Amino acid sequence: MNVSTSLRVRLPVLVLVLEVVIIALYAVFVTYDDNANAKLQNNETNPMENSLYQDYPFFADVQVMIFIGFGCLLAFFRFYGFSGMVFNFLTATFTIQWAILMQGFFQFYYDGKIHLGVINLLNAEFACAVVLISFGAVIGKTSPVQLLVMALLEVPVFAVTEWAVLKYVRINDAGGSILIHLFACYFGLGVTFVLYRPSLNKGHAKEITSYHSDILSVMGTLFLWVFWPSFNSALTFKGDDQHRAILHTFIGLSSSTITAFALSAVFSKRGKLTMADIQNVTLAGGVTVGASVDMMIFPVAAYVLGVMGCTACFFGYKYLTPFLARHMRIQDQCGIHNLHGLTGLISSIAGICAILLATEEIYGPSMYQTFSHRAPREGDPKLLELQRLIPGLKPGLGRTAQEQAVYQLVAVISTIAASTVGGLLTGLVMKLPFMASPSDRECFDDELFFNMPSGFDSEGLKIPISCDEKGQMRSMNIKV
Amino acid sequence: MNVSTSLRVRLPVLVLVLEVVIIALYAVFVTYDDNANAKLQNNETNPMENSLYQDYPFFADVQVMIFIGFGCLLAFFRFYGFSGMVFNFLTATFTIQWAILMQGFFQFYYDGKIHLGVINLLNAEFACAVVLISFGAVIGKTSPVQLLVMALLEVPVFAVTEWAVLKYVRINDAGGSILIHLFACYFGLGVTFVLYRPSLNKGHAKEITSYHSDILSVMGTLFLWVFWPSFNSALTFKGDDQHRAILHTFIGLSSSTITAFALSAVFSKRGKLTMADIQNVTLAGGVTVGASVDMMIFPVAAYVLGVMGCTACFFGYKYLTPFLARHMRIQDQCGIHNLHGLTGLISSIAGICAILLATEEIYGPSMYQTFSHRAPREGDPKLLELQRLIPGLKPGLGRTAQEQAVYQLVAVISTIAASTVGGLLTGLVMKLPFMASPSDRECFDDELFFNMPSGFDSEGLKIPISCDEKGQMRSMNIKV
Amino acid sequence: MNVSTSLRVRLPVLVLVLEVVIIALYAVFVTYDDNANAKLQNNETNPMENSLYQDYPFFADVQVMIFIGFGCLLAFFRFYGFSGMVFNFLTATFTIQWAILMQGFFQFYYDGKIHLGVINLLNAEFACAVVLISFGAVIGKTSPVQLLVMALLEVPVFAVTEWAVLKYVRINDAGGSILIHLFACYFGLGVTFVLYRPSLNKGHAKEITSYHSDILSVMGTLFLWVFWPSFNSALTFKGDDQHRAILHTFIGLSSSTITAFALSAVFSKRGKLTMADIQNVTLAGGVTVGASVDMMIFPVAAYVLGVMGCTACFFGYKYLTPFLARHMRIQDQCGIHNLHGLTGLISSIAGICAILLATEEIYGPSMYQTFSHRAPREGDPKLLELQRLIPGLKPGLGRTAQEQAVYQLVAVISTIAASTVGGLLTGLVMKLPFMASPSDRECFDDELFFNMPSGFDSEGLKIPISCDEKGQMRSMNIKV
Repeated sequence: MNVSTSLRVRLPVLVLVLEVVIIALYAVFVTYDDNANAKLQNNETNPMENSLYQDYPFFADVQVMIFIGFGCLLAFFRFYGFSGMVFNFLTATFTIQWAILMQGFFQFYYDGKIHLGVINLLNAEFACAVVLISFGAVIGKTSPVQLLVMALLEVPVFAVTEWAVLKYVRINDAGGSILIHLFACYFGLGVTFVLYRPSLNKGHAKEITSYHSDILSVMGTLFLWVFWPSFNSALTFKGDDQHRAILHTFIGLSSSTITAFALSAVFSKRGKLTMADIQNVTLAGGVTVGASVDMMIFPVAAYVLGVMGCTACFFGYKYLTPFLARHMRIQDQCGIHNLHGLTGLISSIAGICAILLATEEIYGPSMYQTFSHRAPREGDPKLLELQRLIPGLKPGLGRTAQEQAVYQLVAVISTIAASTVGGLLTGLVMKLPFMASPSDRECFDDELFFNMPSGFDSEGLKIPISCDEKGQMRSMNIKV
Repeated sequence: MNVSTSLRVRLPVLVLVLEVVIIALYAVFVTYDDNANAKLQNNETNPMENSLYQDYPFFADVQVMIFIGFGCLLAFFRFYGFSGMVFNFLTATFTIQWAILMQGFFQFYYDGKIHLGVINLLNAEFACAVVLISFGAVIGKTSPVQLLVMALLEVPVFAVTEWAVLKYVRINDAGGSILIHLFACYFGLGVTFVLYRPSLNKGHAKEITSYHSDILSVMGTLFLWVFWPSFNSALTFKGDDQHRAILHTFIGLSSSTITAFALSAVFSKRGKLTMADIQNVTLAGGVTVGASVDMMIFPVAAYVLGVMGCTACFFGYKYLTPFLARHMRIQDQCGIHNLHGLTGLISSIAGICAILLATEEIYGPSMYQTFSHRAPREGDPKLLELQRLIPGLKPGLGRTAQEQAVYQLVAVISTIAASTVGGLLTGLVMKLPFMASPSDRECFDDELFFNMPSGFDSEGLKIPISCDEKGQMRSMNIKV
Repeated sequence: MNVSTSLRVRLPVLVLVLEVVIIALYAVFVTYDDNANAKLQNNETNPMENSLYQDYPFFADVQVMIFIGFGCLLAFFRFYGFSGMVFNFLTATFTIQWAILMQGFFQFYYDGKIHLGVINLLNAEFACAVVLISFGAVIGKTSPVQLLVMALLEVPVFAVTEWAVLKYVRINDAGGSILIHLFACYFGLGVTFVLYRPSLNKGHAKEITSYHSDILSVMGTLFLWVFWPSFNSALTFKGDDQHRAILHTFIGLSSSTITAFALSAVFSKRGKLTMADIQNVTLAGGVTVGASVDMMIFPVAAYVLGVMGCTACFFGYKYLTPFLARHMRIQDQCGIHNLHGLTGLISSIAGICAILLATEEIYGPSMYQTFSHRAPREGDPKLLELQRLIPGLKPGLGRTAQEQAVYQLVAVISTIAASTVGGLLTGLVMKLPFMASPSDRECFDDELFFNMPSGFDSEGLKIPISCDEKGQMRSMNIKV
């Protein structure tokens, strides 16, 4: 028994404390929102118009992405499949509980209560995606205790940043390229910078995949791929905005996918495909279309964005990730900087271009819905005129496209700043003792934190290691 | 060829007989319900208001749970993956066909016909869940013939019990904690009691998992986890009731999950996590919230119920299951008594508490929808008054909360009684000869009922057994 | 490095050319349809009535079938799991992009533009299913370059056939038994006829499954099974038609499944089940109900169709597939002629019967919606009368049932003719040099096109081959 990484006391104590805190906060602060409150139903309430029916399908799709998509994708290591899938499960579950509270205080709090509906869960899932992306940077090198601590700290930083950007900077970012992907990426890089393990730069014998783990991981990719349109459109305006978000995401992913295959083949020494490219680079398009996903960018732009995002992502994996690991102390295990950082930046720029090009000629009056900050301010006579065309149009801030472009830029910069600082500080906390952090040698190995099935060693699963490491014959450790 | 377990005659004959019976009954008795009947569509029918669009999304989610969730979860044995996944497929498919008829006669029968719509399929899926849960008690020790016989007998017993309880006792049990989980559990325990195999109490060499089977099984858990909110809310009232059911299920599962991780670590000798806990105990919260899932119990109660259910379930696995096997002749293979029995009982009690605490102050007049039996009887002037507030409110039984609590108790007791007796009798039938029942030695082994892929033996898959069993060196059975 | 099958130049060049063409065509021709166009939203547009909400749930379900269902199902070979799953991903992604354009020109083109909405994506998925079914005939024996070329050519042939049949022949084929399954089947057979490899008739050492690949493949089957009702109903009329389509598909699949188990057991020498039957034959019912899936055939007919389709499919696998391979030069790898051809033919006949039996007595006036070609022509006074009963009924062609039966037959024959010719010609193109076609020896092997995970050889995975082939002892190739 390895005392320093035993979860026997650490994990239960942490979970117990968190549960007591959560129960106390739920008891005092959490009540139902109007759509879940029996008392507010009356003879004018049509049950089928409950917000549930708008939100739940998207919630369920994102659930599949979070628990099954991420879970399988992160099970790509040969000896770390249990950990990849199961720590994802634990971290996601805790993060959502916590995000309900943290985002609740900032976004759903009034009359002294957080008002809970499926819409909060949907928002909490996005916070959860943030944490899971960051997890990608440090997978294999962290204990479940560290992951819970990361979630514990990342969620409030994210909730504050999200709230400040949405409320004060007011941006267009339907697919979350800025708030989700950039935040998650730079937070994760901050954490991994602090948790730098020099010895791992030489590679680790267990940092490999297997036939089965590669297939499992592709399945995760496919689940993410299939439901990504729901992710990118879940929080847009209903109607044509959501319709476009789904079209663009699908198109961006499609062009990104075939590009990934082409690049994988062309940059492989023997003209073969590499599974890691198919597991990751294919998804780049989903991020790249994010910031402009609900705008009238036309299908061809989504297509081109997918190709661009994929290309940046691919070369990121090829050149940037090794560079960052060697020269910048940034060991980005899953290459989140490629799949979420570079693509997020491209997406942000594309979003700014789309904002600058948006005119009433293209959008009609509903431009002031998609770009709500451009709607006239309360009291402006133009507002009344528009409200005749678009009933229920909310007053905006009367910004010009140029002004909005600047705000988008401000959002990008402040999100990166907040997440980097947050990540660095969180990394410092995660580096404290009694966090059950694995030693370098113990990384990428399920055995550290799991009771393995009997015969795990003898299953032939572990044989290749001994020869890969030493490159020589050894007596066989299958017990026969 | 093992004659006594050959499926060559038994299975086809049984299936053929069942098909002839089903075809005859479908031909004579089954027609479309109003929403699927072309003739009843007229100029006042809005196609989009077809009940299909309310029921189908939930139906599809539960389908995923039944076929993929259960299928993967039950494939947890190392040498029994084919059987776990495929017998689940067979049993589920037959059960639904049969339940359409059995529930049809009791719940959807009028004008001499069973009227079929997606709502019947949804109900049949719940009957199917019942059979699959019971299957968990005897997995690895039964032939597909026995499983079909079990389904054949369990479905009518369930249909009668369900109908009697819903029609005469009239209870609140939106998530099916009583009618589904308790029934399935005690029926399964009854069956396994009769099928007791003393020699298996010493353990069986093949009663083990493998790295891959554990991962597959967790995937099943994740599918169940993700779609459980749909399961628990599928048959509630639409609107706020369904909204709450989804919230509570999600919260209960979440708290249950992190609790399961904590308990798994604290009660493991070496402070490591055990996959079986993650595969099963995490789900306890979904059952525990069931009976009160649509009520105004507030999120914190769902959270606490998740923690309680998980704790009971965990200790059940740890202490009760071995005790039952050793001293009570009850070999509960998957521990359904922990995941469905103990949690179902807690849920029933929680439901009774929630009923006793329900007041018009909290629920408003829609209390008489959620607790329909508390609505005033036909003719009561209070009914008319309430119908002005809630249009379409149906007359109820004018019960008080206390009366209802008693009825809930009656339902719990009679469900347990009916299912136990049904299970015992069914077990006796399953024990008859010519059921292809595997011998003790042949249990937990796919080879008994499947043509295995070539090289199955030589794949290294079977090596560990020979040493686990004997604990000594043997000549290797990989053919090289 | 095998120069003739290196993807290094071939695949990227092909993808690049295709992308340039697609980008050009998207730029010039593709715009948004009305439901995705911001400009067309006005004060009378209710966002929740956007067609998105009718189409997207079905689209998402079919996405799961295409990418995960087919992906897993086609990963059934022991050494070809990467290829099965990943080439499916590549081919599907490209096909949809291409079908958006090809079907767009024929079905969604007006005002000089293809109008894009989720409904196009849904149609493109059906084109994609066509290509993936055809892929089944040649899996293991084709390079990704060949698969892209096949998709490139099959999609336009399909789009033209579909358009001609739907526009000029006007048929009932809600589940696509004729246009999807028969087309895909005979196209695939045409291709494989041209790509005939005599040496493979003797079997190939790697043409085997493994324990894990069989389980993965069954998971694919289950995903297809679960979502098939969405597939068969996605393009029917909304309301009762779609409701019936879902019921019939579910019932047909159910009866087909239990029949498959029975047949698998009875025709196995040792009375055991065969995984290949469960992977394929269980699904036959989904195809067989296709052509009459939205009609008032009553549940019992769907049940019987499932049994019939399954039986034909099973014996097809048993007798016809080997016969075709040996005597007709048709090597149908996945047996698509059984699962899609024979069942498609039965379905077509069943559809004709259902058409001949359809009367206004059974359907009421909505018969003229389900059988739109039987509706009176524009100007017929009967039309006005019917439009009072069914508002929005579109004028038809005034055909009789008998006339329609003939048209159905014409559609079957012309679909088979077009697809066979198309398949043969496409096969010729695929046989050209520089298509990276694998040699006979290299078939069914991931290593040809993939960088394999380290230790793939030594994992024990490859051992059985050497003895299966030679039947004698060899020095072991696990490096120990």
